[in-house]
Amino acid sequence: MTELPRGIIPPIVTPFRGGSFDDAAFRANIEIWNRTSLAGYLACGSNGEGVFMTDDEIVRVVEAGAAARARGMFLLAGTGRESTRRTIELSRRAAGAGAEAVLVVPPSYYRSSMTDAALDAHYRAVADASEVPVVLYHVPKFSPVQFSTRLVLGLAGHPNIHGIKETSGDLAFLSSILAGRPTSFRVYVGSGGLLLAGLLLGADGGIVALANVAPSECVAIHDLAVAGKIEEARRLQFGLLAVNHTITNAHGVAGLKHAMDVLGYSAGEVAPPLQPVGAKEAAEIESVLEAAGLRGSPSRRHV
Amino acid sequence: MTELPRGIIPPIVTPFRGGSFDDAAFRANIEIWNRTSLAGYLACGSNGEGVFMTDDEIVRVVEAGAAARARGMFLLAGTGRESTRRTIELSRRAAGAGAEAVLVVPPSYYRSSMTDAALDAHYRAVADASEVPVVLYHVPKFSPVQFSTRLVLGLAGHPNIHGIKETSGDLAFLSSILAGRPTSFRVYVGSGGLLLAGLLLGADGGIVALANVAPSECVAIHDLAVAGKIEEARRLQFGLLAVNHTITNAHGVAGLKHAMDVLGYSAGEVAPPLQPVGAKEAAEIESVLEAAGLRGSPSRRHV
Amino acid sequence: MTELPRGIIPPIVTPFRGGSFDDAAFRANIEIWNRTSLAGYLACGSNGEGVFMTDDEIVRVVEAGAAARARGMFLLAGTGRESTRRTIELSRRAAGAGAEAVLVVPPSYYRSSMTDAALDAHYRAVADASEVPVVLYHVPKFSPVQFSTRLVLGLAGHPNIHGIKETSGDLAFLSSILAGRPTSFRVYVGSGGLLLAGLLLGADGGIVALANVAPSECVAIHDLAVAGKIEEARRLQFGLLAVNHTITNAHGVAGLKHAMDVLGYSAGEVAPPLQPVGAKEAAEIESVLEAAGLRGSPSRRHV
Amino acid sequence: MTELPRGIIPPIVTPFRGGSFDDAAFRANIEIWNRTSLAGYLACGSNGEGVFMTDDEIVRVVEAGAAARARGMFLLAGTGRESTRRTIELSRRAAGAGAEAVLVVPPSYYRSSMTDAALDAHYRAVADASEVPVVLYHVPKFSPVQFSTRLVLGLAGHPNIHGIKETSGDLAFLSSILAGRPTSFRVYVGSGGLLLAGLLLGADGGIVALANVAPSECVAIHDLAVAGKIEEARRLQFGLLAVNHTITNAHGVAGLKHAMDVLGYSAGEVAPPLQPVGAKEAAEIESVLEAAGLRGSPSRRHV
Repeated sequence: MTELPRGIIPPIVTPFRGGSFDDAAFRANIEIWNRTSLAGYLACGSNGEGVFMTDDEIVRVVEAGAAARARGMFLLAGTGRESTRRTIELSRRAAGAGAEAVLVVPPSYYRSSMTDAALDAHYRAVADASEVPVVLYHVPKFSPVQFSTRLVLGLAGHPNIHGIKETSGDLAFLSSILAGRPTSFRVYVGSGGLLLAGLLLGADGGIVALANVAPSECVAIHDLAVAGKIEEARRLQFGLLAVNHTITNAHGVAGLKHAMDVLGYSAGEVAPPLQPVGAKEAAEIESVLEAAGLRGSPSRRHV
Repeated sequence: MTELPRGIIPPIVTPFRGGSFDDAAFRANIEIWNRTSLAGYLACGSNGEGVFMTDDEIVRVVEAGAAARARGMFLLAGTGRESTRRTIELSRRAAGAGAEAVLVVPPSYYRSSMTDAALDAHYRAVADASEVPVVLYHVPKFSPVQFSTRLVLGLAGHPNIHGIKETSGDLAFLSSILAGRPTSFRVYVGSGGLLLAGLLLGADGGIVALANVAPSECVAIHDLAVAGKIEEARRLQFGLLAVNHTITNAHGVAGLKHAMDVLGYSAGEVAPPLQPVGAKEAAEIESVLEAAGLRGSPSRRHV
Repeated sequence: MTELPRGIIPPIVTPFRGGSFDDAAFRANIEIWNRTSLAGYLACGSNGEGVFMTDDEIVRVVEAGAAARARGMFLLAGTGRESTRRTIELSRRAAGAGAEAVLVVPPSYYRSSMTDAALDAHYRAVADASEVPVVLYHVPKFSPVQFSTRLVLGLAGHPNIHGIKETSGDLAFLSSILAGRPTSFRVYVGSGGLLLAGLLLGADGGIVALANVAPSECVAIHDLAVAGKIEEARRLQFGLLAVNHTITNAHGVAGLKHAMDVLGYSAGEVAPPLQPVGAKEAAEIESVLEAAGLRGSPSRRHV
Repeated sequence: MTELPRGIIPPIVTPFRGGSFDDAAFRANIEIWNRTSLAGYLACGSNGEGVFMTDDEIVRVVEAGAAARARGMFLLAGTGRESTRRTIELSRRAAGAGAEAVLVVPPSYYRSSMTDAALDAHYRAVADASEVPVVLYHVPKFSPVQFSTRLVLGLAGHPNIHGIKETSGDLAFLSSILAGRPTSFRVYVGSGGLLLAGLLLGADGGIVALANVAPSECVAIHDLAVAGKIEEARRLQFGLLAVNHTITNAHGVAGLKHAMDVLGYSAGEVAPPLQPVGAKEAAEIESVLEAAGLRGSPSRRHV
């Protein structure tokens, strides 16, 4: 049985150029991250703009990720669609392209119909059909559906559902999952601002946008938390709060991509309807990165 | 220039059987509605489960609608996708398949990034590229994005943006659009429970789920409102409030489909993750239809 | 049995000066309104800042209102408190001070406990104890509790509950009340932007902030709606949308008070923590009033 | 300068009997808690139903608390009202009655007007006038106003504002306060389900409903967190999640009072409009307490 890794996994961005996937930029970023102690990559998640891509495009990005990652780097792919059938199709294609597990955001267009029973049936159908393990994805800010503890713990008993990325921000909910899960069910913190808190509560790792721009710092928070060095971990976590806020809540994927470009990555364009950050936002992002001590080329920083 | 019609347009359901589009059922429904005074059809909107379908499937449904509708029935198609590029592609394909206008739900996955500027650019790009007129679709309960009056009235000045389906439920917002729009910009009420109120304020028509099951009654509300026969219109509107609630807020598309089956239409299955109504909900829907006097075969009722 | 009036009732502001009730200013405003065809006054409602006042202060304002109003002007007082006991006490004191009915906002601090059963018990206890009729007050933007149709229609059967001020903005909900109410149960529109729509649906009147600054125009909307002169009514309603937005949603009570001062009323200070509008907001309000043609002294306008 | 304590402070319930404060029951509870290592008491907070009481009643409860507490137990009182003036008056009276600090919930009736500027002015006015230190109270579920980091850190510089009870549930916000506060500014976790997480992030203590029913367990979580014994602390925290959910989110103050009665405290009645729990809820609460191992008389448990 595939065991999902502990540790830090960035939900990596998908660089676009002229509206198309920029393969070279994508590989260039992965080569930088390959030199870190990250546990793997999530391709085509929320920060990967998977929601904008056709299935063919997602397959191409997953293939590129599978080819570029260093040995030992786990590869997750975001494959949730609104329909159960299409989620199954894409999950199978992503597995065929090299994904070792799929992260499935819940359908939410008809959110008042997304009862526990509907979500349970959806995830079981996907997990039954998927050749690789399924990871639940709870992210009400993008897909406005609330998971219940009962739903998640029920699904955790399915032999092909191996974990959850918890991005609701509710650590009491995260705690209730941690308190009741089977030990093999991985729990990933989904919010960079809550990484340390979640890890101290017993989460296995983090899948956080912040790890795109501060991979080594996120890994350090993880390692310090595991080692019980709380004060040092707190200093790191607190020092990254403003950066995390800027590249998620404040400016979203466009902000994240600008931050990456500033730090020496090749993030490329966002896909419309997303719009690039303006000059004022760009300056604000740069000053936040500066204040956090993240400036400087990433290759230098990861040596 | 294509002039969009006044009057009532049902957002027609898409019957599925065994997971596939049921063409025969779809045509059977349209043949019933063809005998009414509806102004046209919206295919693949929210009640048409367009969000579950691939572009190929949507094209097929639009083609079937174009073939089955009676002469004079206007054909709208829902073509909004999360990405601007894919919305353009689907809009062009739907026009090629026979749609006379496209209804475009806004992107909302990254809703905190969907500023007025982003939405304005998105709709202008789609309208520039579309061969048929664009109708804006404001429906926060499905796509949790709020339009501003300024955004809508700005877009109303684009030569290829011809109207709006207003399904936020906020009639003060609807009023502000009606107060400021160019006269050729059509305003459709999007909520069956607000049909009369919106028409009395000056809206041109309604695109409401309710028109799937009570087409002649919705047309009558429209005609009575235009004729200033308010009391009679109110009686009709009030008599349909419970039906409307049941097939939208309470039980969604599955409830609507069950109601249609009860009334002699061929609504088919919902696509998973939607689930059919249970026995208790079915009985409740039937009793609400009964109380509203809607039972009896639709062919008899529309003679 | 007291019959509540049809027509327009302004929720009148309470002028403060140096933190205390300014009786003279209060009377001066009422003398202007006394020359209109308003149906009465609501003292100490949301626009009257009743939530800031002690019971003694409310009694004093109600007494002042009772003394100043012209013959035939109905006097309502806002008396809702968080506790049932204190709501009863204040309702009885307000009746003693001259209120002919009391408007009772629901408790909402413990809003997740405010079930239909709790609200039903609360309102019945108040209505049983009150010497004057009770009017329900549904205003989720201030008191974040949602009434259900079942709750309101159940309470409408109580012999001492005579009406509702509906300020949720949901005209489908308003319709469901109108469709099911006993004929003696008064329904008042609570939002100035929805005044015409609500009246056309059959509401009996409006209790709207807008009537503080445009009393005669609100009365005209009411009279035109009753007379079936919809187009003329619409012109008036649409012409006041921006004013209404400015003195409610955009700038709240401070905006309303500034608008009143500009128009020749004596609105006085707001009570802290409310803050007066700044220079920029003041200019915006003035320009909106100008555009709506409301400038000029009210005494001249009401002749 | 008064230094606020570190550790656990229960927001103690106010027992009512026949609608009046039950002094004897109140003292009986405090005598039980006096035997624990709690740091003090909060009287008349959200769980103390302060929102239902007149100023006179609050003064009486504070006096009773001051008299009953053991030496060294800190006494906080909830004194927030909607108006600034009345908050000041009550804060001064509470201090006179023995409160060593006041907890001030923000005004929220006019929540769209409660800008940072308005809240800043409100809290500064209260802090300037109060004879005892002010503690900010962030609790959007009861008072739907969101504090910003900038607001709180700005107020933390006021010489008479000494801390915050953070009950929004957002630990990223809590972190941003912890990261920027002056060291003397106390940060209390306000949610029992987040007690451990908040303490591990560096919070000084907790003011949580849970401490009414599990005072020694909450103190143990605090002490274990301070000592870095994370695993043991987690076991305690996880074991109390269901209890905490039941006495807060699920059943509110009525649930908390029933749980206390079951455990041997004298919680008394809730004040209407709150309603006592029904038989089904009571059984559920008892079973949750049983499962958490909290049954048995508190006096025995605290020996």
